[in-house]
Amino acid sequence: MSLVSREIRLKSRPVGLPVAANFELASVDVPAPRAGEVQVKNLWMTVDPYMRGRMNDVESYVPPFQLGEAMQGGAVGEVVASNDASLKPGDLVMSMLGWREAFTAPAASLQKLDTHGLPPQAFLGAAGMPGLTAYVGLIKIAALKEGDVVFVSGAAGAVGQIVCQIAKIKGHTVIGSAGGAEKAAFLREIGVDHVIDYKATSNLTAVLGAVAPGGIDVYFDNVGGDHLEAALTSARPFARFALCGMISQYNATDAGAGVHGLMLAVGKQLRLEGFIVSSHFDMMPAFVKELAGWVAAGKLTWKETVEHGVENAPAAFLKLFRGENLGKMLVKLG
Amino acid sequence: MSLVSREIRLKSRPVGLPVAANFELASVDVPAPRAGEVQVKNLWMTVDPYMRGRMNDVESYVPPFQLGEAMQGGAVGEVVASNDASLKPGDLVMSMLGWREAFTAPAASLQKLDTHGLPPQAFLGAAGMPGLTAYVGLIKIAALKEGDVVFVSGAAGAVGQIVCQIAKIKGHTVIGSAGGAEKAAFLREIGVDHVIDYKATSNLTAVLGAVAPGGIDVYFDNVGGDHLEAALTSARPFARFALCGMISQYNATDAGAGVHGLMLAVGKQLRLEGFIVSSHFDMMPAFVKELAGWVAAGKLTWKETVEHGVENAPAAFLKLFRGENLGKMLVKLG
Repeated sequence: MSLVSREIRLKSRPVGLPVAANFELASVDVPAPRAGEVQVKNLWMTVDPYMRGRMNDVESYVPPFQLGEAMQGGAVGEVVASNDASLKPGDLVMSMLGWREAFTAPAASLQKLDTHGLPPQAFLGAAGMPGLTAYVGLIKIAALKEGDVVFVSGAAGAVGQIVCQIAKIKGHTVIGSAGGAEKAAFLREIGVDHVIDYKATSNLTAVLGAVAPGGIDVYFDNVGGDHLEAALTSARPFARFALCGMISQYNATDAGAGVHGLMLAVGKQLRLEGFIVSSHFDMMPAFVKELAGWVAAGKLTWKETVEHGVENAPAAFLKLFRGENLGKMLVKLG
Repeated sequence: MSLVSREIRLKSRPVGLPVAANFELASVDVPAPRAGEVQVKNLWMTVDPYMRGRMNDVESYVPPFQLGEAMQGGAVGEVVASNDASLKPGDLVMSMLGWREAFTAPAASLQKLDTHGLPPQAFLGAAGMPGLTAYVGLIKIAALKEGDVVFVSGAAGAVGQIVCQIAKIKGHTVIGSAGGAEKAAFLREIGVDHVIDYKATSNLTAVLGAVAPGGIDVYFDNVGGDHLEAALTSARPFARFALCGMISQYNATDAGAGVHGLMLAVGKQLRLEGFIVSSHFDMMPAFVKELAGWVAAGKLTWKETVEHGVENAPAAFLKLFRGENLGKMLVKLG
């Protein structure tokens, strides 16, 4: 079976905030599967802030996207033709072959997905890398311990929403920052103790100090910049910062203002640690087991923001930097 | 026996770099020791960069100095009169009652000093808190491990000189930064592999990149500012930064430029950890044991810069911020 797949290619490298012209839509023929291969139609793909880094021509923990080629990213698809015994038509598979409608690939390069009754796109969010990121950052990197007061930035995003809920399930006081009334309302719904609408304040440090007069013990950083500075100021001695992302900085075109107050890390004996979820896949079984229990008990939920059609994937991606996603930003392809 | 002691008091709180007028010299009578007390003449006192923080009226890990009162700090003295069985005249004692020529205090508040053949002032430097600071920062905070390339700022200072030598003894490639030809020559003498004279370069990041083309695994920070930025740029994945001090920032009167490049900590999975030596006194026995062996084997040495007379203690302190000390800055009182 031959298919035509539309895909999004990186046409030019963005300088600063990406624009639509950095991307192009192309069509390719998807060949029938040869021995050991399967043909897959994607149902869902994810857009994530970290992909901005891959658009620069810079070596990092993942190689840069190549100009003129389809971009990559997490996707859930359905096998439509198979030439390998391990997968059959109708099976769901996870891949890193997002940003396209369909593909043919070796069966061994794909992960068969058992949804355990969850919607398949959950495995691009709460039950996938963003969820594991939240779990690893809180439990391992920040070494969450009893009594910790937890501050989360980007709290209504794909990762942040899970961080907040895990911390609440474990009995912590949680302070969540997000932008706008809708996100703030969602954070209250999921039990966040103190919600900061950062768009409604000009002095985040003062606001955080007011809601956490005793200070914070853990900071889960998705944002960087003034959120990080506020956390340094409010940190108690021996506080731990899990540096997951700094979306406020991803499109910076100059060195900017830098982070102030880092000297506080000496006297307060703070630990700031960056992490990448792929270094901690060993924690996936523990995470999935805990997550399944929380979901079954009705203790953990999540939001999704859905755009439709691969042609709208760049627009969905750009919305991340304007904070126009509540929870996980997804593109529905199927 | 009644003594007169000259002491240095904090007269006014400095704004920015301290000046002579922030200090005053006063004379007090030192009473004869009552039951349980001893009278001590100080032989040596230390001035350390961290004392700058105590001159501000800000709660930190140590309380601020009080205006109109003698300042405090490490000192080695000799008991001249005793009214307690645990100490006798001629005994050497360590105290936090520096910045004065003599004092009377409860014997139980002092630590009797056995010099093991070292000069007594060594216990204010290599064999004291600065030495332990170097050891704790490298071994525990930075978790030094085989093959690590180690970058040290303030490398010719009280702590830095010991960091460099411990790292060399343990077989590491060491890059040391210090200001001026004399310090650079000393660092070469003690075997530092790559010496950076930061005063002779306008682009520390480029220079560090050139001497460590493969990157660094450990950064021991005594300086902050552009040294920290250079270290972030040169850091290899999973590098560990021991944040010991940031002398470049201690006299800042405004927020300044901030630290750039902290976002690199995410992708490179860096760990930045501040520490205070007093939280790690449990490592003192291990440190002293190793140090004694290194000194006996002629593997570890150190430099001192000595000023004379308590009246010159403020000047000695101010020299720290102009980098006018090679090794440990001390004031000889006896």
